[in-house]
Amino acid sequence: MSFLKNVWYPFAWSEEVTGDLFSRTLLDEPIVAYRKQSGEAVALGDTCPHRFAPLHKGKLVDDCVQCPYHGLKFNDAGACVHNPLGDGKIPGAAKVRKYPLIERDTLLWIWMGKPEDADPSRLVDFGFLNNDAYAYTAGRVMTMPLRQDLMLDNLLDLTHAAYLHPTSLGIAAMAHGQMCVSQTGNTVLVQNLYPNGLPSNVFSATGACPADQPVDYWVDVRWDAPACMYFDAGVTPAGRPRSEGSLLSSAQLLAPESEHKTHYFWRVYRNYMCDSAELTAAIEDAVTAVIATEDEPIIQAVQGRMKGRDLWAMKPVLLSTDSGAVRVRRLLSQLADVEAKREASAR
Amino acid sequence: MSFLKNVWYPFAWSEEVTGDLFSRTLLDEPIVAYRKQSGEAVALGDTCPHRFAPLHKGKLVDDCVQCPYHGLKFNDAGACVHNPLGDGKIPGAAKVRKYPLIERDTLLWIWMGKPEDADPSRLVDFGFLNNDAYAYTAGRVMTMPLRQDLMLDNLLDLTHAAYLHPTSLGIAAMAHGQMCVSQTGNTVLVQNLYPNGLPSNVFSATGACPADQPVDYWVDVRWDAPACMYFDAGVTPAGRPRSEGSLLSSAQLLAPESEHKTHYFWRVYRNYMCDSAELTAAIEDAVTAVIATEDEPIIQAVQGRMKGRDLWAMKPVLLSTDSGAVRVRRLLSQLADVEAKREASAR
Amino acid sequence: MSFLKNVWYPFAWSEEVTGDLFSRTLLDEPIVAYRKQSGEAVALGDTCPHRFAPLHKGKLVDDCVQCPYHGLKFNDAGACVHNPLGDGKIPGAAKVRKYPLIERDTLLWIWMGKPEDADPSRLVDFGFLNNDAYAYTAGRVMTMPLRQDLMLDNLLDLTHAAYLHPTSLGIAAMAHGQMCVSQTGNTVLVQNLYPNGLPSNVFSATGACPADQPVDYWVDVRWDAPACMYFDAGVTPAGRPRSEGSLLSSAQLLAPESEHKTHYFWRVYRNYMCDSAELTAAIEDAVTAVIATEDEPIIQAVQGRMKGRDLWAMKPVLLSTDSGAVRVRRLLSQLADVEAKREASAR
Repeated sequence: MSFLKNVWYPFAWSEEVTGDLFSRTLLDEPIVAYRKQSGEAVALGDTCPHRFAPLHKGKLVDDCVQCPYHGLKFNDAGACVHNPLGDGKIPGAAKVRKYPLIERDTLLWIWMGKPEDADPSRLVDFGFLNNDAYAYTAGRVMTMPLRQDLMLDNLLDLTHAAYLHPTSLGIAAMAHGQMCVSQTGNTVLVQNLYPNGLPSNVFSATGACPADQPVDYWVDVRWDAPACMYFDAGVTPAGRPRSEGSLLSSAQLLAPESEHKTHYFWRVYRNYMCDSAELTAAIEDAVTAVIATEDEPIIQAVQGRMKGRDLWAMKPVLLSTDSGAVRVRRLLSQLADVEAKREASAR
Repeated sequence: MSFLKNVWYPFAWSEEVTGDLFSRTLLDEPIVAYRKQSGEAVALGDTCPHRFAPLHKGKLVDDCVQCPYHGLKFNDAGACVHNPLGDGKIPGAAKVRKYPLIERDTLLWIWMGKPEDADPSRLVDFGFLNNDAYAYTAGRVMTMPLRQDLMLDNLLDLTHAAYLHPTSLGIAAMAHGQMCVSQTGNTVLVQNLYPNGLPSNVFSATGACPADQPVDYWVDVRWDAPACMYFDAGVTPAGRPRSEGSLLSSAQLLAPESEHKTHYFWRVYRNYMCDSAELTAAIEDAVTAVIATEDEPIIQAVQGRMKGRDLWAMKPVLLSTDSGAVRVRRLLSQLADVEAKREASAR
Repeated sequence: MSFLKNVWYPFAWSEEVTGDLFSRTLLDEPIVAYRKQSGEAVALGDTCPHRFAPLHKGKLVDDCVQCPYHGLKFNDAGACVHNPLGDGKIPGAAKVRKYPLIERDTLLWIWMGKPEDADPSRLVDFGFLNNDAYAYTAGRVMTMPLRQDLMLDNLLDLTHAAYLHPTSLGIAAMAHGQMCVSQTGNTVLVQNLYPNGLPSNVFSATGACPADQPVDYWVDVRWDAPACMYFDAGVTPAGRPRSEGSLLSSAQLLAPESEHKTHYFWRVYRNYMCDSAELTAAIEDAVTAVIATEDEPIIQAVQGRMKGRDLWAMKPVLLSTDSGAVRVRRLLSQLADVEAKREASAR
């Protein structure tokens, strides 16, 4: 499996990277990040070029990273600026990679391709995370022992909620609701509508609506490469316009640590009972539990059955409700092909 | 290592498969089993053909298995009979494998080859498990982290009991007792006789005979492919006919989960003190302890030394007492060759 | 990675091998050792040639090893001298390898190459371990989950102590002390001198010298193949001759269990406060803690980054202070080449 490189990946929630050294691996590349005294966040390769110690186990000294093993210091451009050893000479090759990093919408975004190709205009818009009218959960990261593609399949086909999450996110009607898949440029929309049914427990239990009165329930999923999703979700009393609705929406973003491990970033917001910190905490706990005890075990079991094989090599039986996930898989393949050709021609 | 396919394997003790979904993997194939309302047992492939979820994590509904992930239902023939999703269409490929299954002699037997080749007349006879005159332990299954061939070697050469089980099953005389190996068709007999010695502890401690009076001790092992063994074992006062003996016999069957993991089915019976449930439980505990604390560690250590290599590739020093185990190894090789040729000619 | 064979490896401290069976794996070869009633130590292959059981799980009977599985007995030359099974015949191939073993300087040394090439004159001299004037820690063995080459790099470049061990073995001056690398025959010397500085904590805390008065601190490392090092280390008041010094010296020897696991033998001695058993115990604890909590984690992290690759394949940035470790790496490569050629020409 080859992951896209020339794309912005979510690297961390803003609040995760502070004046201490922070490490996270993306696409098998260990990365160390920190904030300079100016507050600007920096991301560097996390492996000392001398003897390959992880730099994040060292110290942050004057906006530089000092290696824990032999004390070489690297500045925020990744250049070795101090060799405390022996003759003190600094070989030209003594540098680590510097990754383009942008802070926007409560997230730090990282560019995994060639730095010169990093184009801020290609950042996906998650501006709704800055809307003061909403109440947000903390930015959550769960590093899952799961393949990114299987997590994407899960998030792009919500019919599974009817069977896997029947007492929380799901209602029986989600199996056969209306699903509309469309594409604009490289953005895929999967619009789900479950009209005139009783609400799922996550809405009624959080006070978004009464449990016994019919609602229209929608989840519009906006996907952008590589795995950046916005779930615009809510309920209205049946037949009423969405502007009157109770929203329980979210950012849902994935970034592969490796082929079989994926960072799952999510942050939920709502537009009702916004002052209740208890409700925010309850939503965090409920979503965490659903992911950890319902989604993760089933996806891990699926992964076990697949034994590292590609989905298409397994010849899956496709259903009409796979259309969103399949559209995204095909688009990702096309983007990977384009990238591979571009790389080949650059050689 | 390739395992025989066209043969009946022990899959489960009858009592293990109930009205709930039951799962077990044989020959690397995950299998789900259950009983229909009629009581008939069914075995199906345990992987949904849609997104590869393990079906046994789902529900049994009206004699059908409902997938835990998206709710597809499969009937007792393995056919998808309900797609609750979207347009509800059922693709022709939406089916799972159905395995021939026969219930006999307190066991469920499964055919791992082509269903059309499944021949009930080839079932090995374990009718003694139905004899009302005996007292039986419960059907036990231990899934061992061991190669099947090394477990077979162990069971077919009982000389090891003199050294590995000196205080339980073994007596010193088992090293140099009489061993007679013979073959009838594809059935191998390894007849062991230890005449006129003191009994092993397992007999004297369970009241089969006094500890201080000489007995004739026999263990006649009947082996059939792939690894179905009947241990006809007992003691008589030295010189007396076997019809007067105290039996402590057993069914001993193996079925590989994978190359390095084996299901070990065993059930011990006796013809003395049959009313004592305490004695039955004590025998269960003692045999379990011998297997888990004496046989398993030594076989696992041997397996560690072999590092996945075939026995013959290791050039073992063969002794006269290896003759039973070696006979069975050669017969299994011949049967595997026959099967491979048959498969090749069918292509 | 291929390890040298025709060389003496440290196998065990003398006190480790007693009248019981003792096992240790070197170069992926499981070895069983014991002392005969005469006190002489013996090392044999630890795998029974019959069914590959580990002999060390058996019994020592009359200077012979009895296999735990079927009772075959092997004498101190590795020959099977008793088959208790069946006809009792002993096949000619029933033998295990006997390893040349020499006991000297509180160590048992083993020859891993052809026995006929074992040359006692090639034993490295660790005679200082017999000096009655010194106080010694017990012989310690730590089996580390580390590659031997990375442990060698660590031991041959002490600059790391300034950063990794700042509160114990190291002082800041160790980063830029005097380091002199020389070679005599196949012996490499790395002589380190840190003149006229405050002592490291390991000296001052153990009463070797005051903490607040300048000392000359030296560590002369003598290396011989494959990884036998003598650390001649001590402090004197600044400017005084070494003969007046407080020594805290050590034997430091490595022997690979496998490519990614290494036995680390060490024994520290001193020439001050020799009667204090408490001080000896404190030194043992301190050194053990430094190795286990400072060296091991960083080397393991480095090993993780290298993912099994050779150092040169990683294209490390080399510094002047790598010269000792690099000299030893090149010499080991040359010796391996010589050995490979010799083996090839012998075929």
